Amino acid sequence: MLPLCALTVSAVAQAQEFTPTQLEDVAKVRTLASQSDLSWQLLESLTTEIGPRLPGTENDKLTVAWAEKHLKRLGFDKVWLEAATFPEWRRYHESAKLIAPSEQPLHITALGNSISTPEQGLRGEVVLFETFDELKAAPPGSLKGKIAFINYRMNRDIDGNGYGPAVQARNKGAVEAAKKGAIAYMMRSVSTAHHRFAHTGGSHYDDQVTKIPTTAIANPDADQIARLLKHGHTPQVEINIQTEDLGEGTSFNVIGEITGSDYPDQYVLLGSHHDSWDLGTGALDDGAGMALTMAAAKHIASVTRPKRSIRVVLFAAEELGLWGAKAYFKRHQDNLTQIVAAAESDFGADVVYAFESNVNAASLPLVRAIAEQLKPLGIKYIGANRARGGPDLIPLNNLTSAPIFDLHQDGTDYFDYHHTADDTLDKVDPDKLKQNTAAYAVFALMAANGKTPMQGK
Amino acid sequence: MLPLCALTVSAVAQAQEFTPTQLEDVAKVRTLASQSDLSWQLLESLTTEIGPRLPGTENDKLTVAWAEKHLKRLGFDKVWLEAATFPEWRRYHESAKLIAPSEQPLHITALGNSISTPEQGLRGEVVLFETFDELKAAPPGSLKGKIAFINYRMNRDIDGNGYGPAVQARNKGAVEAAKKGAIAYMMRSVSTAHHRFAHTGGSHYDDQVTKIPTTAIANPDADQIARLLKHGHTPQVEINIQTEDLGEGTSFNVIGEITGSDYPDQYVLLGSHHDSWDLGTGALDDGAGMALTMAAAKHIASVTRPKRSIRVVLFAAEELGLWGAKAYFKRHQDNLTQIVAAAESDFGADVVYAFESNVNAASLPLVRAIAEQLKPLGIKYIGANRARGGPDLIPLNNLTSAPIFDLHQDGTDYFDYHHTADDTLDKVDPDKLKQNTAAYAVFALMAANGKTPMQGK
Repeated sequence: MLPLCALTVSAVAQAQEFTPTQLEDVAKVRTLASQSDLSWQLLESLTTEIGPRLPGTENDKLTVAWAEKHLKRLGFDKVWLEAATFPEWRRYHESAKLIAPSEQPLHITALGNSISTPEQGLRGEVVLFETFDELKAAPPGSLKGKIAFINYRMNRDIDGNGYGPAVQARNKGAVEAAKKGAIAYMMRSVSTAHHRFAHTGGSHYDDQVTKIPTTAIANPDADQIARLLKHGHTPQVEINIQTEDLGEGTSFNVIGEITGSDYPDQYVLLGSHHDSWDLGTGALDDGAGMALTMAAAKHIASVTRPKRSIRVVLFAAEELGLWGAKAYFKRHQDNLTQIVAAAESDFGADVVYAFESNVNAASLPLVRAIAEQLKPLGIKYIGANRARGGPDLIPLNNLTSAPIFDLHQDGTDYFDYHHTADDTLDKVDPDKLKQNTAAYAVFALMAANGKTPMQGK
Repeated sequence: MLPLCALTVSAVAQAQEFTPTQLEDVAKVRTLASQSDLSWQLLESLTTEIGPRLPGTENDKLTVAWAEKHLKRLGFDKVWLEAATFPEWRRYHESAKLIAPSEQPLHITALGNSISTPEQGLRGEVVLFETFDELKAAPPGSLKGKIAFINYRMNRDIDGNGYGPAVQARNKGAVEAAKKGAIAYMMRSVSTAHHRFAHTGGSHYDDQVTKIPTTAIANPDADQIARLLKHGHTPQVEINIQTEDLGEGTSFNVIGEITGSDYPDQYVLLGSHHDSWDLGTGALDDGAGMALTMAAAKHIASVTRPKRSIRVVLFAAEELGLWGAKAYFKRHQDNLTQIVAAAESDFGADVVYAFESNVNAASLPLVRAIAEQLKPLGIKYIGANRARGGPDLIPLNNLTSAPIFDLHQDGTDYFDYHHTADDTLDKVDPDKLKQNTAAYAVFALMAANGKTPMQGK
């Protein structure tokens, strides 16, 4: 039970911000989105008919065309593309095996941006470090001719908070290993899975340090190597990865707008990214985000025309370094105050369980009014007002203090699939996708219809 | 609660067959096996230090040496090898991708015994059949130049009863597809998993029919192809598998015996197989069976010397067609009546939930006495007396009516991992492995110590 005063405040907030008709429309949108399988249809089409969507590939072009076609088909008032450049990279081959103490296949993947091994592969003794800091502390030259291996285990948590501590080994591991003389770098996957899928993801080199191949292995394979060492063996591994740096590539942010009736230049931004890694079909990352934001805006338009615009932005080349988002916010940097609310769906397709803002105090009554309408979807309100937004909102946050929102999803299982070959459509629950769609629809409509535009801190 | 009469019958049976001291020994063995991590240590060593164990490979030789060494180390009275030949086969490469309507990697594996594709692979349109019977019913010539695909879904069940109906498509699919003119055969994995692991396994050709490459794809990939067809596309697939038929190979059954005090020639046979497919490390199939039967006999020997012998038989080359078992029972065919009980552990490492015999009626009191001592392990008695034994007991059953036992394991999740790269040590629960070990130890000791030797029907 909520205390009576909270109910009263909330009821007052709603009445201050919205007419009874507007609140009826919110309920209609919520019901429609909760029942419609539009987001599922979009996700099924995208992940089945196109599949993986690595920036710069033919599938990337197909994705841009797919998104433009469907946004138009769904009746968005304006649909357009904005170019974004990025460092184009391809994976052609990856394999690895233990060659001592016995021959055993290993499940490996090149991290994004990795250089190739020699054509015939490379071989070396594995040296295990439990953490990135231990690798950093290794003496110079101590890894000469060897393969550095960080076996850090990511924590499982509802908000994915294990990712950050684990991912530094992905971003910087190869640089630190090369500094010590290693010929290759290998890491336990940034993953909570117990399956033999290696987790790819972005990685970086330092121009001052020799580039070495940088890879991740599946968690059971990481355990295998750790056990061999425990038993006193000296594991020898052969790695062969063939990749290519293709220089600067170009893709496109795809944008669809439902134009507002009263303040068309002001808009709610619903973000997601249309690229994916090449291993899976990017159903969770981030096909779901694309499908549910597209469907949410469409459901709103089916019920009413909002006062402010709703802009669905499908960012390009997120996985390679937020390139679409950087291009978008740079291009629109003189008009960022037109964004009255921004949220990104890029954390899979499990249920939204909480709603949180990051806004100016004057905007909080409207936030609470929105939270009240999210409650029927099982979504609680987090009053901390510290939302950070998804990754594609980082460039926005770096430029200005925009009104940012988190529709917190349950990420307990997300890192079982994230960035692996196993990120496929069957991992998405259609009912949970509907709940997500309804949450974004309610949020976007109410954020667009507030009496006054929301502002950041 | 059991009815009083059942308790009485059971108590009488036990008192008739066993002395109080013998029953105390049973309890000691049960406790020891339930607490010891010996079976885990063996399984960890086998799957870590050797890993995959395809017959004829260097790892197969390492396995034979490993088994001989550990049986001797554990104090078995006799340890010996018996040769078995088999058709040797290797997998060198396997890859596949959708090339239309978009390029997408597919997770594929060659079925055992498959021939290679041309070096550069082959390409064809996929034609889907829901069942093996539908493929059989296709008109002659109707698959000319195409890839036949059976999408039959295996049922999940505690006793794995979905395997049989699914596996005929693996055994005979390529022959039926070739009869219709197909250039390759592809099937949905005989698996209950929702992960992108293809399931390998034995397959057969017919000398009268053209041999074509025969493969399985992971279940999410099978779903993907089915959805593409549903959306009206014509999926084109490229397959490249490189394998080799190496003619007749030789491996060895490895046998360890705890010699009986009173009737050393009569013996309880505890079976498992020491080979595995090459994709995973064969932890569930059948490293667990090896480890737990070895440990069970050792625990018995630690407590008492049984009246009859206990023979742990680690069969060779089971996966390629029960070759070790065929050789063993042929070699010993004049002495099969010396087998007073036979059971095989080859169904993973989940708990034993039921005990069932297949014996002459005169042996049933002893069976019930054993069942009574398995109850404390949570194992129920199935009185149907229709046990079939594991796969390596098929050649025995074909030769004679031996006293066969099933220690029924929970196989609900077994086919999530079976014959895939994901069959690794982390899928085994150490506590469940202990329960299995204790069950086999209690069974073997009591079967060896009965007043009269058990007989088959």
